[in-house]
Amino acid sequence: MTTYQQLVLASRPQGEVVPANFRMESVPVPALKDGEVLVRNHYLSLDPYMRMRMEDVKSYAAPQAIGEVMIGGTVGEIVESKNPKFAVGDKVVGMFGWAEMGVSDGMLLRKVDTTHIPLSAYLGSVGMPGMTAWYGLTQIMQPKEGETIVVSAASGAVGSVVGQLAKQRGCRAVGIAGGAEKCAYVVNELGFDACIDYKAGNLAADLKAATPNGIDAVFENVGGKIFDECLGRMNPFGRIALCGLISGYDGEPMALNNVRAFLTMRLTMRGFIVSEHIDLWPQGLKELGTLVATGKLKFRESVAQGLQSAPEAFIGLLKGKNFGKQLVKLV
Amino acid sequence: MTTYQQLVLASRPQGEVVPANFRMESVPVPALKDGEVLVRNHYLSLDPYMRMRMEDVKSYAAPQAIGEVMIGGTVGEIVESKNPKFAVGDKVVGMFGWAEMGVSDGMLLRKVDTTHIPLSAYLGSVGMPGMTAWYGLTQIMQPKEGETIVVSAASGAVGSVVGQLAKQRGCRAVGIAGGAEKCAYVVNELGFDACIDYKAGNLAADLKAATPNGIDAVFENVGGKIFDECLGRMNPFGRIALCGLISGYDGEPMALNNVRAFLTMRLTMRGFIVSEHIDLWPQGLKELGTLVATGKLKFRESVAQGLQSAPEAFIGLLKGKNFGKQLVKLV
Repeated sequence: MTTYQQLVLASRPQGEVVPANFRMESVPVPALKDGEVLVRNHYLSLDPYMRMRMEDVKSYAAPQAIGEVMIGGTVGEIVESKNPKFAVGDKVVGMFGWAEMGVSDGMLLRKVDTTHIPLSAYLGSVGMPGMTAWYGLTQIMQPKEGETIVVSAASGAVGSVVGQLAKQRGCRAVGIAGGAEKCAYVVNELGFDACIDYKAGNLAADLKAATPNGIDAVFENVGGKIFDECLGRMNPFGRIALCGLISGYDGEPMALNNVRAFLTMRLTMRGFIVSEHIDLWPQGLKELGTLVATGKLKFRESVAQGLQSAPEAFIGLLKGKNFGKQLVKLV
Repeated sequence: MTTYQQLVLASRPQGEVVPANFRMESVPVPALKDGEVLVRNHYLSLDPYMRMRMEDVKSYAAPQAIGEVMIGGTVGEIVESKNPKFAVGDKVVGMFGWAEMGVSDGMLLRKVDTTHIPLSAYLGSVGMPGMTAWYGLTQIMQPKEGETIVVSAASGAVGSVVGQLAKQRGCRAVGIAGGAEKCAYVVNELGFDACIDYKAGNLAADLKAATPNGIDAVFENVGGKIFDECLGRMNPFGRIALCGLISGYDGEPMALNNVRAFLTMRLTMRGFIVSEHIDLWPQGLKELGTLVATGKLKFRESVAQGLQSAPEAFIGLLKGKNFGKQLVKLV
């Protein structure tokens, strides 16, 4: 194997992301220098945050450069090593982006144990999405036993973990998801107390019925009307972990209308980026890893096959077509 | 004097508050029971929060009942006492509402010293509005030296204190107010670094010019477009103390459009009600009282004469016609 494939950002989206925003390239496998390793990626993670990086706007991170490999988390295997800390066959988590292979000096690579935890889970419940859920829940929502928490995109990689962790802390966990199948999964498989199908057309009434004691904390992934409905059900001193606003990523207007609730209910809202809280990752990953290894934290994956499927899978993710963690299988 | 005057809520406002929402009543001065005092109110405080109480909606406090005396803070003098803790002539802060007199068992009365601080200031900079400013600034905005803070309604009873306290903590203080006269006062008299006239029609450009290093913390009294403009200038990890939304109190739509800034800049917003943090009042009032007594905290009052002027003065306050703390002088 002397070349590998990678996907670069060809152009910035005008509204919705389209396949033409990406371009496949074939590049030579580089020769390793001392200290470097070559990784063959087994899975690529697709995550909503990538949508924001595709735009050239002021944000928490520099925009994805045109012509460069799309960023993204990956898990894979060392296939060649000139670094004594890594042996051929070691499984590693990295940030090689939308590419079949990658070279690293090892600095940002993390070896993982796949004895009890499947490799792909390190991109999901025991990776960045899981930590996002853990951070938002424990550090911002801070739910107490008996409180009601609501999480949007509840069947997704992040939302599914939020609700399960909340249940383990004695909370009433209510999810919001799109479609009866996802909602059934959230309640029957993940163990949430209720899940509201926002596509069913009765969001306000269904939310009221599912939260008879109001809402104490929200994990918000979506924004827009769903978020406004939640704000109208908040109890005094409610907390909102603002993780994503996927409903507005394509530029649709996404006003928050119920601003007054923040005042009348003395709410606290905090936006966060989990990569800025690396100090808490060991603590969070320990809890998440134990739960996955012992079968107490369930997850589901949507797996697209081959790097060429990544653009369509990503576009589907932004429209909620995935079911659980969206991955691209590369090997 | 066997009777006194009081204003009751006659009807709930439909949109803007109108004089017909209030009704003047003459009531007998009651005979005191043991333990009670009779207070003659010298000043009545008019505050934006009263507007929300006039409506029958879910909020932090029960709505003002129809036919009952409008609530409100007052300062006055003991004119009769059957309570050993209070002597005739003592100056007191109370919550007697829109009324010339009031009877109390002393529980919620606070004796104040007018040697160095004028009585009316206990309804302003050394009272609830001052504490509102102090709490929002010190507990939520937590500005560090060199940071830029922005406060809307900057010439008002709360905003004026926010900016002055921020200046004393080494911040750049930028106000927003309506009209050139108020803005000149905010800069020249109160010592803010800049003040933007939102009526001048260049809000976005003026805000940008006044905050060359962005905004680190906002004290929000107004809401609406002004708030959105501020959100667009926030620096990472900015803090927003949400104190009021006066632009929306009459029911105008008041959407927050720049929700995305909360995510991209990892902002924290907290709504608060200062009366829920009584534990901090001694600390705050000590700082505020010392500053007023030594001339280091300046304030301005708009004083309406006589209880009958309260409705018009209150309606003017909601439209920004007041200049500084709005009071009604009763004696």
